[in-house]
Amino acid sequence: MTNTVQTAVIGVTGYAGAELARLLLHHPRLKSVPPIFAGRVDAKDEARGGIPLTEIHPQLAGSNTTGLKLEPFSWELLTSRGVQVLFLATPHEQSREWVPEALARGLRVIDLSGAWRLTESSNRAIYNFEDEGTELAAETQAQAVYGMPELHRVEIAGARLVANPGCYATSIILALKPLVSAGLVDLDHGIVADSKSGVSGAGKAPTAKTHFMYAADNLSAYGLFTHRHTGELLEQIGVDKDQIVFTPHLLPIPRGILSSIYVRFGSSQTAESISQIYREFFAHSPMVRLHNKTLPQIQHVVHTNYADIGVQLSSDGRRAVIVSCLDNLLKGASSQAMQNLNVMQGWPEAEGLE
Amino acid sequence: MTNTVQTAVIGVTGYAGAELARLLLHHPRLKSVPPIFAGRVDAKDEARGGIPLTEIHPQLAGSNTTGLKLEPFSWELLTSRGVQVLFLATPHEQSREWVPEALARGLRVIDLSGAWRLTESSNRAIYNFEDEGTELAAETQAQAVYGMPELHRVEIAGARLVANPGCYATSIILALKPLVSAGLVDLDHGIVADSKSGVSGAGKAPTAKTHFMYAADNLSAYGLFTHRHTGELLEQIGVDKDQIVFTPHLLPIPRGILSSIYVRFGSSQTAESISQIYREFFAHSPMVRLHNKTLPQIQHVVHTNYADIGVQLSSDGRRAVIVSCLDNLLKGASSQAMQNLNVMQGWPEAEGLE
Amino acid sequence: MTNTVQTAVIGVTGYAGAELARLLLHHPRLKSVPPIFAGRVDAKDEARGGIPLTEIHPQLAGSNTTGLKLEPFSWELLTSRGVQVLFLATPHEQSREWVPEALARGLRVIDLSGAWRLTESSNRAIYNFEDEGTELAAETQAQAVYGMPELHRVEIAGARLVANPGCYATSIILALKPLVSAGLVDLDHGIVADSKSGVSGAGKAPTAKTHFMYAADNLSAYGLFTHRHTGELLEQIGVDKDQIVFTPHLLPIPRGILSSIYVRFGSSQTAESISQIYREFFAHSPMVRLHNKTLPQIQHVVHTNYADIGVQLSSDGRRAVIVSCLDNLLKGASSQAMQNLNVMQGWPEAEGLE
Amino acid sequence: MTNTVQTAVIGVTGYAGAELARLLLHHPRLKSVPPIFAGRVDAKDEARGGIPLTEIHPQLAGSNTTGLKLEPFSWELLTSRGVQVLFLATPHEQSREWVPEALARGLRVIDLSGAWRLTESSNRAIYNFEDEGTELAAETQAQAVYGMPELHRVEIAGARLVANPGCYATSIILALKPLVSAGLVDLDHGIVADSKSGVSGAGKAPTAKTHFMYAADNLSAYGLFTHRHTGELLEQIGVDKDQIVFTPHLLPIPRGILSSIYVRFGSSQTAESISQIYREFFAHSPMVRLHNKTLPQIQHVVHTNYADIGVQLSSDGRRAVIVSCLDNLLKGASSQAMQNLNVMQGWPEAEGLE
Repeated sequence: MTNTVQTAVIGVTGYAGAELARLLLHHPRLKSVPPIFAGRVDAKDEARGGIPLTEIHPQLAGSNTTGLKLEPFSWELLTSRGVQVLFLATPHEQSREWVPEALARGLRVIDLSGAWRLTESSNRAIYNFEDEGTELAAETQAQAVYGMPELHRVEIAGARLVANPGCYATSIILALKPLVSAGLVDLDHGIVADSKSGVSGAGKAPTAKTHFMYAADNLSAYGLFTHRHTGELLEQIGVDKDQIVFTPHLLPIPRGILSSIYVRFGSSQTAESISQIYREFFAHSPMVRLHNKTLPQIQHVVHTNYADIGVQLSSDGRRAVIVSCLDNLLKGASSQAMQNLNVMQGWPEAEGLE
Repeated sequence: MTNTVQTAVIGVTGYAGAELARLLLHHPRLKSVPPIFAGRVDAKDEARGGIPLTEIHPQLAGSNTTGLKLEPFSWELLTSRGVQVLFLATPHEQSREWVPEALARGLRVIDLSGAWRLTESSNRAIYNFEDEGTELAAETQAQAVYGMPELHRVEIAGARLVANPGCYATSIILALKPLVSAGLVDLDHGIVADSKSGVSGAGKAPTAKTHFMYAADNLSAYGLFTHRHTGELLEQIGVDKDQIVFTPHLLPIPRGILSSIYVRFGSSQTAESISQIYREFFAHSPMVRLHNKTLPQIQHVVHTNYADIGVQLSSDGRRAVIVSCLDNLLKGASSQAMQNLNVMQGWPEAEGLE
Repeated sequence: MTNTVQTAVIGVTGYAGAELARLLLHHPRLKSVPPIFAGRVDAKDEARGGIPLTEIHPQLAGSNTTGLKLEPFSWELLTSRGVQVLFLATPHEQSREWVPEALARGLRVIDLSGAWRLTESSNRAIYNFEDEGTELAAETQAQAVYGMPELHRVEIAGARLVANPGCYATSIILALKPLVSAGLVDLDHGIVADSKSGVSGAGKAPTAKTHFMYAADNLSAYGLFTHRHTGELLEQIGVDKDQIVFTPHLLPIPRGILSSIYVRFGSSQTAESISQIYREFFAHSPMVRLHNKTLPQIQHVVHTNYADIGVQLSSDGRRAVIVSCLDNLLKGASSQAMQNLNVMQGWPEAEGLE
Repeated sequence: MTNTVQTAVIGVTGYAGAELARLLLHHPRLKSVPPIFAGRVDAKDEARGGIPLTEIHPQLAGSNTTGLKLEPFSWELLTSRGVQVLFLATPHEQSREWVPEALARGLRVIDLSGAWRLTESSNRAIYNFEDEGTELAAETQAQAVYGMPELHRVEIAGARLVANPGCYATSIILALKPLVSAGLVDLDHGIVADSKSGVSGAGKAPTAKTHFMYAADNLSAYGLFTHRHTGELLEQIGVDKDQIVFTPHLLPIPRGILSSIYVRFGSSQTAESISQIYREFFAHSPMVRLHNKTLPQIQHVVHTNYADIGVQLSSDGRRAVIVSCLDNLLKGASSQAMQNLNVMQGWPEAEGLE
């Protein structure tokens, strides 16, 4: 265990990147070693040594960001600055390309994209990765650990490549895994995961669907039966494609996810027995907050690093609705990445996150 | 069939009441016979003959509302003005009390509350009606017709008491009835109805939950396994309590409902076969718009009088998600009430609603 | 005066275009003569005769839009269908090009863009019109009437080219003109017009500033001292550049404008004297609603065709804040265009607008 | 200078109280000494030793809030726990009553209400304080320092009673003071301060105006010529009542204030000369961020403890619009209170705030 580490972030210009920068700059062990921010910059900005971070994200202006810049990316930049851990908050195509190179150069990588999350090629098919089937891709995938500390703490500690989970997937897997692992859920009956996410989940690119006039005062379902995060649900929860339906919706809010998850039990359960299962499952997981008698709401998780989970049983104890909330940019992306860094470094898992 | 009719509205001060007033004032057959607005007014307002409608709802100001007032309610007022049809946009307790009296006085009633929607006393239990079990209540209930023209057009035409459906219930019943009636839905497998509504559905009273700071940038689930509209689902769709789960959520928008409804079929279906069932079911229903290849969104139904329905099948044709949208203040309340009036009067069902 | 007229709309795909289509389709004298919608369509859509209107604007689906299409534009199309009045809801560059041609072909034109609103070349400079200085442009401009019926009713009635006002400009001119015309405002003291508009005013193109994440939960000022609508203020109110400051702000709402306007009077005024001036000025203007003792709010004008105006005086009667509200897509664009059509046709000015 | 201090908070149930709690719990010098939270609790809650803080504010749940409670208030509670600094986030009537008692008991007080901000009785008149004119009130007021460190750093350091500024007042005073102090502003010409605030500024009580349906998709002006914060502007900026107009507006967002401030200069200025004045004025003020060439926006200050200020000059250099933004719950309330604590304790002014 070391007291600090030199990090770098590729992709700081996006929403998750901004939050990741904020977290890294405030982490007690990293304050004195600000991350290197690197990426594509045009010639004009290159001439001035990069783009000031506060030009990209004015909200980050403060004494701790004075002088920080988005610098022109090169592997040499990372090497010369002694970077040991690389965060990629980049599109998945770019992560597919850069991760093998980063690993080859001895960097440990936390990749926030969907590039390396899926073990099964059938689940990866939807991404249409160009390098699918190559030896390099297979070798890289073999090194990847799914970066959800609540499920894979030990593997993450030793991992060289951590594939940070999808935001929707995080909210659903954390909610379902305890019950499915305990063998309570009647899988043949089918699980329904009805999720709703704020617009930041759709990324920073201006499109017809991220236009204020499309999203505001609206709610829309999308990606029915086909959303990319489905593969993560199958692999991590351990269910078949026919056993779960996942429907994402676009909420007219900036951030936050709420998933309403419907299960049927093989036998009648009590609130106490269910509560006990969750308490045990998350006994050593500081970033999960369990609700008792109340249900989570988006307003209580945004701008926090927690996932909140609550359960309501039907009066006969045979059915349950699990409500799961998190901030898609934090526990659904950047603070989970930070949590993974803590685990990888042997630091307290919640350090810098409370 | 008459060309016009004198109406009265009790409860114009609420959100649905305002929309009902707007619709009645613009209806081509009612323009020359504005409704009587009546209700409780304090002594000061009584002294000036009531409260100008545009003081209550400034957005309604215009040449067609000049001089209109919320007048002090009395049965004599209604009689003396020749009222034939009474709309009640009142709390259900008040509707329980007033409807028998109105019927006794020969008025036809369209009640927008939950007072008279439910046939089964077990489904009514949640309301705790004070007059439950009395002979008068039973006689009144016996006269009530559930006011969804798409299901009960003929009975509504002759009804003296129309119980206008709940907003959530409308969005779910219209979406499910065609498939359940056709015998396609595997009921034992369970139906999930995950609904999301704008804040106007919570009424005009300022409460902790209607506070802007509670609702904005938030999403919350409530009333799990216990929402009052559940009884309407059971009775109108024809399913048992164990066969459907209904979860309402509070959306951070003023108006609009979207219901995501999950069903499993007994046998594999095609998009075309499902589409055909809906087209036939709603062949003569002008206020339902069926989507083909697209899914409804809230932005396309708010400020319209329509319910929009779309269906997405899984690739194996065994499961479907039905998405159903409407404006909770219009097709979910006041424009459905107006539609019922059209049916009761023998006028074209969509008159004044397109 | 004729009972109806054949219209055409170029630019129906935008937000104002959609509202204009809705208004035209509901106008009592135009119901039986739906407008021709024309514009650019790609080859595939041309092959199917254009794009169904309800594909572009699903919210307009209904019996009155069945079969309507956005057809491939050509002057021949307009001629062959007998179009007499052409609405242009197009970018100003396009209006500069098309209006002269339309006039030459004998069409009367209502142009919703900023192309022909300004008499003074110095005020037009900010637009950088390509044809500035040409004889054709000068001749066309000479025919243009500023389309604010409250100020130019008589000229509009006979106009062949009506330049429909800007949305901000409408809210400010209507608020200030009565007081400035009455000679009450101390112009040397300076007028401040602080305006706030919903995002639809920024147009349908997805940009960084119309992204939900930029606009939501935000407020930003822009175009300080340089906004294009300033010229309209100067010309229509009759003030010098140094006598007014206009600052627009982007509100996190879909639609609506509120302008807070600060003036100082040459002598002390009373609420009654000010009120009297407004009442007289707008005595024959059905689309302006004057507030007495209350102030307008955006919620009371959105989805209406009115401009609402209210005034609050300081206790010494020497200063006033005028609050002016309208729906930028309606009285700020399409319903004012419709109002102009009514005036041009000699129909009641408010017909189809209440 | 001590390394820590025992604090107490009365009024933690409100929005500013929640933020104050969060800040105190994260302050590096206070982490080990959590504040005492005290207030009225009913008998049932008193029996269980108070109300868990996370029941009141679920978003604060975490390892650092375990066991913290809102305890039944008594002066003995504060004494027995060794409280030295008392924060009052209470209604002003309550602060008028409690502050003298607290001072008498030797506590230092930071009062977030409007109770003790105003020196002039004419400016206090609008509050209608019950104890106005009493000797105790006068003595208490004489001890009060206006808690804006950027203006009164030295006095705050030694103060026993700090009157924390109003949110609107903070945004306007910080923006104007440098220019007015420098003698540049032509005061006879009049200053206009047009401010817009999120709904949290209106408090947690559910009222007609804080109802989601009132505030959402809306903008409204209120308190014209009469808002309570006006007195703070007059006293702190040093202008007469006739020299400034202040109009607050209610924005449809949870938090954040943007003030657009209009001034005229006695002589022509340059961007650089104006910029220089601000830089010098705030040279030692870490919580003010000055914009150069850009203007502040609400999105960049919410959830930060900064006030952002930017200026745009007219082309002739004679007029300027100053745009000033802050988070009304932070720099407009609780983080300014924390900043005052830092100054009172001799700690770095920005500690725990960046």
